[in-house]
Amino acid sequence: MTYCVGLLVDSGLVFMSDTRTNAGIDNISTVLKMKTWEVPGERFLCLLSAGNLATTQATISLLDERTLAPSEREPAILTQPSMFQTAKLIGETLREVITGSSGPQCASPMFSGSFILGGQIKGTPPRLFNIYSEGNFVEAGEDNPFFQIGEHKYGRPIIIRTYERTMSLPECAKLLMVSFDSTLRSNLSVGLPLDLQFYERDSFASGLRTRITDKDPYYKTVSEGWSDALKTAFDALPDFVPEAWAEHTEAA
Amino acid sequence: MTYCVGLLVDSGLVFMSDTRTNAGIDNISTVLKMKTWEVPGERFLCLLSAGNLATTQATISLLDERTLAPSEREPAILTQPSMFQTAKLIGETLREVITGSSGPQCASPMFSGSFILGGQIKGTPPRLFNIYSEGNFVEAGEDNPFFQIGEHKYGRPIIIRTYERTMSLPECAKLLMVSFDSTLRSNLSVGLPLDLQFYERDSFASGLRTRITDKDPYYKTVSEGWSDALKTAFDALPDFVPEAWAEHTEAA
Repeated sequence: MTYCVGLLVDSGLVFMSDTRTNAGIDNISTVLKMKTWEVPGERFLCLLSAGNLATTQATISLLDERTLAPSEREPAILTQPSMFQTAKLIGETLREVITGSSGPQCASPMFSGSFILGGQIKGTPPRLFNIYSEGNFVEAGEDNPFFQIGEHKYGRPIIIRTYERTMSLPECAKLLMVSFDSTLRSNLSVGLPLDLQFYERDSFASGLRTRITDKDPYYKTVSEGWSDALKTAFDALPDFVPEAWAEHTEAA
Repeated sequence: MTYCVGLLVDSGLVFMSDTRTNAGIDNISTVLKMKTWEVPGERFLCLLSAGNLATTQATISLLDERTLAPSEREPAILTQPSMFQTAKLIGETLREVITGSSGPQCASPMFSGSFILGGQIKGTPPRLFNIYSEGNFVEAGEDNPFFQIGEHKYGRPIIIRTYERTMSLPECAKLLMVSFDSTLRSNLSVGLPLDLQFYERDSFASGLRTRITDKDPYYKTVSEGWSDALKTAFDALPDFVPEAWAEHTEAA
């Protein structure tokens, strides 16, 4: 599995992805699941991938080749007029790859993959999309300002409770580290190192891009600090008083 | 889906289950997933169920009928010599029901179900089992002192970080409320009310048994208090300083 998150906030976009890939539990390796493209001053795109690695890599290679040869008749990812058209191109390429692997009659779930696409093109606001295996996609909005793909359940409650649209990009990075740490502790199929990408609204260029390993002192502090903080928070909640419930039950 | 947890601690056992069942998202109802049996002073059993409701209800009915007619040739759940034999009986009955529905050749996953069994029989310590569709089961121990069945991922990180073997039963109840609240907020297939059951070590009788609804002031306090506590805990973590990472990345 995989765990990737894209967050949309007022000040921009933050992306995080893990790097574990496995074919069986005895065949594990590290792979980059975060791909960016940019035309400085004009557009920035970040793509996170989950699912069958052959499928997502082939999709990205196709998108990349089309980028490298802009004279080709095929549409290029860096020349789409809008984020919507960019998402559409990625979706179509993804579907093309899946259909190519499994035949047109039945797009086998074996070959499925999905993407989170975020970025901004000059003249439009930053946008964030979740692109499905079928090639269609949904966009983040006021009510659903973030997307998760892969092993998303363990890390979801903390995002739901803590996310605010007004968070700064560094605050988002902190939130995502907690969310990823909760997932890493629960599920072997998600693994360090993590890739982190900032995109500052209207910058039309890559923000901070870094890789977080198990040796990073900040990550360690968050991971250990969060366990302690949770225990303190838990202790601070009022105690459960069985006597009160016994009465309550009789009264019911 | 469903969410059920059984926790084994030094002072006994704590069980919690939700009550939502659905056949499609427009066919939702409330059902009890927690069944207890006791012979005061001699044994106490608690069974939590997840999966196909027809399967788990049929299994429990068979176990119950055998309880009601102890003179039958079939083994009765209240006369097993040990918790291990009790788990074995439940597993066999479960497999019998699934095979009866789907035919002996292929036990269809459609009819699958699973159970958490906990309890104590005089002369042995409290024990906790996770019983699978196939009828086999595993037991909780020092290293895996709790079991979750159903929609378990959302509520797992908080148990992993907070559980301690020395917790009191009321502390366990508080922990489970937080774990269930995190799940309820993330997944529609798990729903209130919740059933809670205490078993105090060597009591050989039911401890507190109560039902928690959305109107319970304590549950509300935990649910709202936990959101606030998490935010406070999150704010207390050291900030992410992008400048430090930019240097770090260059150095790498």
